[in-house]
Amino acid sequence: MTTPAVFAEPSASSTDLPPVPAGSVGYVTPQFLSFDEPLTLSSGQILPAYSLAVETYGVLNAEHSNAVLVCHALNASHHVAGLEQASPHQEGWWDNMVGPGKALDTDRFFVIGVNNLGSCFGSTGPTTINSATGQPWGAEFPLLTVEDWVRAQVRVADHFGIARFAAVMGGSLGGMQALSWAITCPERVGDCIVVASTARLSAQNIAFNEVARRAILTDPDFCGGDYYSHGVVPSNGLSVARMVGHITYQSDEVMATKFGRAQRTPGPNGEYHYNYDVEFEVESYLRHQGEKFSRYFDANTYLLLTRALDYFDPAREYGGDLARALAPVQARFLLVSFTTDWRFAPEHSRELVQALLKNHREVTYAEIDAPHGHDAFLLGDKRYHAVVQGYYDGIARRLHLGERRRTTGVLAA
Amino acid sequence: MTTPAVFAEPSASSTDLPPVPAGSVGYVTPQFLSFDEPLTLSSGQILPAYSLAVETYGVLNAEHSNAVLVCHALNASHHVAGLEQASPHQEGWWDNMVGPGKALDTDRFFVIGVNNLGSCFGSTGPTTINSATGQPWGAEFPLLTVEDWVRAQVRVADHFGIARFAAVMGGSLGGMQALSWAITCPERVGDCIVVASTARLSAQNIAFNEVARRAILTDPDFCGGDYYSHGVVPSNGLSVARMVGHITYQSDEVMATKFGRAQRTPGPNGEYHYNYDVEFEVESYLRHQGEKFSRYFDANTYLLLTRALDYFDPAREYGGDLARALAPVQARFLLVSFTTDWRFAPEHSRELVQALLKNHREVTYAEIDAPHGHDAFLLGDKRYHAVVQGYYDGIARRLHLGERRRTTGVLAA
Repeated sequence: MTTPAVFAEPSASSTDLPPVPAGSVGYVTPQFLSFDEPLTLSSGQILPAYSLAVETYGVLNAEHSNAVLVCHALNASHHVAGLEQASPHQEGWWDNMVGPGKALDTDRFFVIGVNNLGSCFGSTGPTTINSATGQPWGAEFPLLTVEDWVRAQVRVADHFGIARFAAVMGGSLGGMQALSWAITCPERVGDCIVVASTARLSAQNIAFNEVARRAILTDPDFCGGDYYSHGVVPSNGLSVARMVGHITYQSDEVMATKFGRAQRTPGPNGEYHYNYDVEFEVESYLRHQGEKFSRYFDANTYLLLTRALDYFDPAREYGGDLARALAPVQARFLLVSFTTDWRFAPEHSRELVQALLKNHREVTYAEIDAPHGHDAFLLGDKRYHAVVQGYYDGIARRLHLGERRRTTGVLAA
Repeated sequence: MTTPAVFAEPSASSTDLPPVPAGSVGYVTPQFLSFDEPLTLSSGQILPAYSLAVETYGVLNAEHSNAVLVCHALNASHHVAGLEQASPHQEGWWDNMVGPGKALDTDRFFVIGVNNLGSCFGSTGPTTINSATGQPWGAEFPLLTVEDWVRAQVRVADHFGIARFAAVMGGSLGGMQALSWAITCPERVGDCIVVASTARLSAQNIAFNEVARRAILTDPDFCGGDYYSHGVVPSNGLSVARMVGHITYQSDEVMATKFGRAQRTPGPNGEYHYNYDVEFEVESYLRHQGEKFSRYFDANTYLLLTRALDYFDPAREYGGDLARALAPVQARFLLVSFTTDWRFAPEHSRELVQALLKNHREVTYAEIDAPHGHDAFLLGDKRYHAVVQGYYDGIARRLHLGERRRTTGVLAA
């Protein structure tokens, strides 16, 4: 085990670092938790040991009753909120949601972010060294499931002495993890908050993942997953994969608003260039996103994460009956979907609501009429954040965690 | 110019060939029309000469008033209906629509199918020899627009002595061509039938095309477009491109019905295999479609066609005002869209309807509640075909082309 996270106060002395914005948890430092007990995976493979990168915000109370686990989506990490000294301009991916006075209020809750096992931001995964070989795991890293992530994270909860989370929360893939926590560890989850997610991918969802994987797997620089030792990166394949993903994260409407048919560098009279370089703004944007992603994300990790998405289907062992799969659940639920999300459309959430109601679970469901598609879960729609904030207020009341400082809240701002 | 098309009668003597199905135009042979007058393209480039592959069905009447031009979509060709001796199991791509007694009744209409200039099924394009170099055109083939296709096809009309088409008809990209005919040659189009199409691609549409192009352009076997001389084909890139396209042609619903989450070869107890080979039926289907496509379609052609799609935007020179762009139109219009088509959703067609009505054009619009997504335009939904058939009946009445033999119609069958 390692040292606990360091919470830097908004710092006046570090003049090199940008000032901390109001409502931010401030500068944070990740910790790396190592677990030496072998982990048996869904596939039957055994991972002899692993480390997880973790950040925490707020203070765990004496009763250990105020902990919230935040689960991340495909390309995110343990860096949920605040700023890291190593890359101070990189706010946590859910910084608008997590902080003092924010919807998930770090004045009241102790929030944990964990980089998923198999990911590439500090946790054990394809890019880390396999101690048995002294080489990066690469394609030899075992495939994982959402249930494996929960298994790996249970030890994080144990490490912090958290018998039961006040809430487990996530969006998209992170929402699946939250759901899986509620199914597989029902006594450890008080409330489960599932945003823009699903109980199982549709054929179309799997199809898009498969396109992304084919782009990576057929890139000659993939080298069968052993690109590390060849000093290359399958950046073309990874870039195409990301471009496909990006389209599915946005609504048709929001792309029309942001880009429309605007040309990037039209000729003097608006002429086209008649070639395959960037002609339209949307092409420039997508290429940029793809290239950026291929510089910071690991291809083997992308394969692994999309496959875990495909595999997630708790109803599978019950002949597809989701209500039966949810029978063990004890948690109360908040589900949020967005009307223009066509990746995990509201129907996915409504199916979950119905299955939970069949089990007489307490469910709150909000369908937010936001234009941003799947990405809406990361954005700051006020109605969406108000729903989440109100829901956490209810949790805090039940757990006697005290009032939120309303003057610093994002909604009051 | 070349010899006219040969219409083989349903043949009893050719015992090697499959029998001709009822309602088919029978065995057909393409003709190749060569045009030696240079063609000035939208880009300003000049194509010194070109050939077009053409099929015709039915008989042109004495008044030359019964001709219908059928325009094809991305991966189709001049082979609209019937069977070709060279590949007798390959029915024309709109065989369910075009034939004796069918919605577009070849007993009354003379139907022309033309392989688009720049395509790879017999017309001049990147795969054909550039007489100036003795090598395939490859990446040197000029980029084309929908308007260029119309310019090239005008000479086909002239060749057959057709001053005015009874109708110009197409689906998807073919619908854009039909629309372009009505705008650029208003006096030559009596009726315009535009199915599952649009007056301009959305940002999302362009984005998907860009993904497809990136997959092709970054495939090392693309060789800058000169793969012919290297004896390779960018089959991986082309395959990924086709997979992306295929997803956009189908609705989420129809993929759920056809594939759902069905596993291809589950373990004895339904286990996953935990690898990146085919795990789900939908993956198998997509890979198959991609690989098949990469064997018969030309990569340079795919680039060219998707770019022509991107570029099409008749309202562009009118500041985006579609009604102004349609001011020259004289044709009556039939527009058809499909509720589950998310590639060119009904909104695209409704926008066209509104712009035509602003110009006081006669418009019939049908929005068909079919589950098949964009692909519905190629399928035989009875309500859809009934609308088209009824519309052609009206054209035939106005042109005094006689009654359809109702007993052989698909709707009567």
